[in-house]
Amino acid sequence: MQLFHRSFNFDHFFKDRDEQVNLLHSNGRILAESIVSSENLPGFNRSTMDGYAVKARDTYGASDSLPAYLNVIGEIKMAEKPAFILQSGQSARISTGGMLPEGADAVVMIEHTETVSGDMLEIRRSVAPWENVLREDEDIRKNTILIEKGSSLRPQDIGLLAAIGLEKVNVYRKPVIAVISTGNEIIPVHSQPEPGQVRDINSYMLGTAIEQAGGIPHYQGIIQDNESVLEKVLRKCLKGQETDMILISGGSSVGIRDYTLEVLNQLGPPGILVHGLALKPGKPTIIALSNRVPIIGLPGHPVSAMVVFENIVRKMISFLKGEVTHLGERKRIEALLDQNVFSDAGREEYIPVVLENRHKQLWAVPVLGKSGMISSLSKSDGYIMIGLHQEGLYQGQKVSVLFY
Amino acid sequence: MQLFHRSFNFDHFFKDRDEQVNLLHSNGRILAESIVSSENLPGFNRSTMDGYAVKARDTYGASDSLPAYLNVIGEIKMAEKPAFILQSGQSARISTGGMLPEGADAVVMIEHTETVSGDMLEIRRSVAPWENVLREDEDIRKNTILIEKGSSLRPQDIGLLAAIGLEKVNVYRKPVIAVISTGNEIIPVHSQPEPGQVRDINSYMLGTAIEQAGGIPHYQGIIQDNESVLEKVLRKCLKGQETDMILISGGSSVGIRDYTLEVLNQLGPPGILVHGLALKPGKPTIIALSNRVPIIGLPGHPVSAMVVFENIVRKMISFLKGEVTHLGERKRIEALLDQNVFSDAGREEYIPVVLENRHKQLWAVPVLGKSGMISSLSKSDGYIMIGLHQEGLYQGQKVSVLFY
Repeated sequence: MQLFHRSFNFDHFFKDRDEQVNLLHSNGRILAESIVSSENLPGFNRSTMDGYAVKARDTYGASDSLPAYLNVIGEIKMAEKPAFILQSGQSARISTGGMLPEGADAVVMIEHTETVSGDMLEIRRSVAPWENVLREDEDIRKNTILIEKGSSLRPQDIGLLAAIGLEKVNVYRKPVIAVISTGNEIIPVHSQPEPGQVRDINSYMLGTAIEQAGGIPHYQGIIQDNESVLEKVLRKCLKGQETDMILISGGSSVGIRDYTLEVLNQLGPPGILVHGLALKPGKPTIIALSNRVPIIGLPGHPVSAMVVFENIVRKMISFLKGEVTHLGERKRIEALLDQNVFSDAGREEYIPVVLENRHKQLWAVPVLGKSGMISSLSKSDGYIMIGLHQEGLYQGQKVSVLFY
Repeated sequence: MQLFHRSFNFDHFFKDRDEQVNLLHSNGRILAESIVSSENLPGFNRSTMDGYAVKARDTYGASDSLPAYLNVIGEIKMAEKPAFILQSGQSARISTGGMLPEGADAVVMIEHTETVSGDMLEIRRSVAPWENVLREDEDIRKNTILIEKGSSLRPQDIGLLAAIGLEKVNVYRKPVIAVISTGNEIIPVHSQPEPGQVRDINSYMLGTAIEQAGGIPHYQGIIQDNESVLEKVLRKCLKGQETDMILISGGSSVGIRDYTLEVLNQLGPPGILVHGLALKPGKPTIIALSNRVPIIGLPGHPVSAMVVFENIVRKMISFLKGEVTHLGERKRIEALLDQNVFSDAGREEYIPVVLENRHKQLWAVPVLGKSGMISSLSKSDGYIMIGLHQEGLYQGQKVSVLFY
């Protein structure tokens, strides 16, 4: 990611990439501008309790044995602006959400009052100024930044924007990501494979993972192992300027990799940035950049392709979305490891696991399968990582399970 | 949830609720039938390494000092069915993903071989039968259940279904959930509030949360505090049989709550199931059922409404989707609590928190705000729970932060 970041022209990248969407359809979208509040909220002094609006000092010293007595001069209805100004010695019935009358600066909860003889209210507890009141600018203060540019909108953020009257919002457009499967052995999903052939798993898996990550997959189909066809398809993707990233899976066996590398270096500067990662599975990954468009060569095996997607591509999509990533965003859960697992030091290794609940303790059970088994991925709930300098993890050890 | 489950007619509920979708558009959808594999995968004995296909027994005892020698009789191309049968004393060049010829039962990695004089191969390591081979039914065995009915489809599951040639898949249709905001003080988001009025935050927040949870929101707009209008709108929602759940927010103040309860009891059996929850915020929640349709009365305050959504409604939507919930699904992260928080015993209390990373330790910092502050919800990353029988949580204590 370091290399990728260094090679990117940040200044111009996000120019003209915003679009306006209805707030109701903005869930998960990335704000293209910081939102500054144009008003105070609630905009009036609002009662947070059912009770009586009062001047706080009229209640000072009130107790069960020595209550305070105030006149009730009216009732404030919801959504109504009180027509009167509260004077010392007066009170007014108010509900949660009601607007305090001018002159009032606190609310006594109804539980601490009793109505006596007509309009006379007995108060048995004192309140401090602004007790049980949300002040007019306490929730949101005018001219402050509510949500920063680059934030991913969640339902509660959308609620906040609704609160200040925003019906439309400027978000970055979703990145368009071309998906290419390569390999003479790859056939369309609807075909019946001959011995030696496999169906195009990666277009389906990577395409739906792109959608989930907030991108738009543009499916380019299957390309035979043919240098000139690969180059033609890549040039077509790059031409319209609407493609933001290209994923090529397969084509990492020696001969094919060689010409893939050559093609990627011919598509415009800077070309290949990374060739080979200290990652298992996922070693033969290629990262290239043609002007502003990243092109990622993923391994053909679905398990390897998914590990590279989760650890490289997902972060790139987040970047291309304009997202400023927040802490705690990657979802993980702690569990105890069910059995020893080992790794060669010098690379990160990812192992799919199933979570099991035994006597209220969560256990991570490795799904051990040979390379290239798609079923192991579908069986698992998430995966654990053995770090670059670790030789393994031990049974009973606490591990972090990352979710797909 | 217990009450809800007991009152539900499970037998007929999910009948005729499935629809067929393209596998490419099935991400996050719930399988309406278990998927049984119609074929073996990979369907042929596949090499997992670049090397030479051999009979394992021809390599027994081979070592650096005492290599084995085999004839190379050909090269197996990708996606090609070998035309020959491998005999003892023979080997054939094979790539990762290639099909083993009949007669071969193992692959020697290329690193452990050397070509000597023409067609003669030197092998310096012995292999066991089926070493470096994925057998024809080892990934997926014909006639086994691949994914159970009720599973939520993830990209890797979609990849698995692509592998067996499924282009379309039967999923449950998304539940349709009517969203109603009530209250004389509630105004449309595009309006400028008079003092005492607030914009319709809940339709936006709950509607987008419904979408995120996999439902389809049907917005019914704002209803004034009026018994007959509320009843009319509810009956309209229930009539077409296409509404699967109704959310009403607001209307929990005493007078309005009374007629809401009355209306909910008149809409058909069994009526009100729950009135009031041991939950803070969220106490005045109402859960009713009109025949098969759950109707939930949520508090009007957005913070309270969201807590009830997360803890009650989300589980109901998961149920209405036909989802068989899996372990580890609710995302959470462990952190240390930044300050003491207290609660009255006898109810669950939910407190929004912000996550902060200090010296590689994650801290959960409570966002303390008065009831009804929408900004506190948007500021937070997740929330912590103080249990029914706990009086509080202490600074430095390990807490689980649940994500929205």
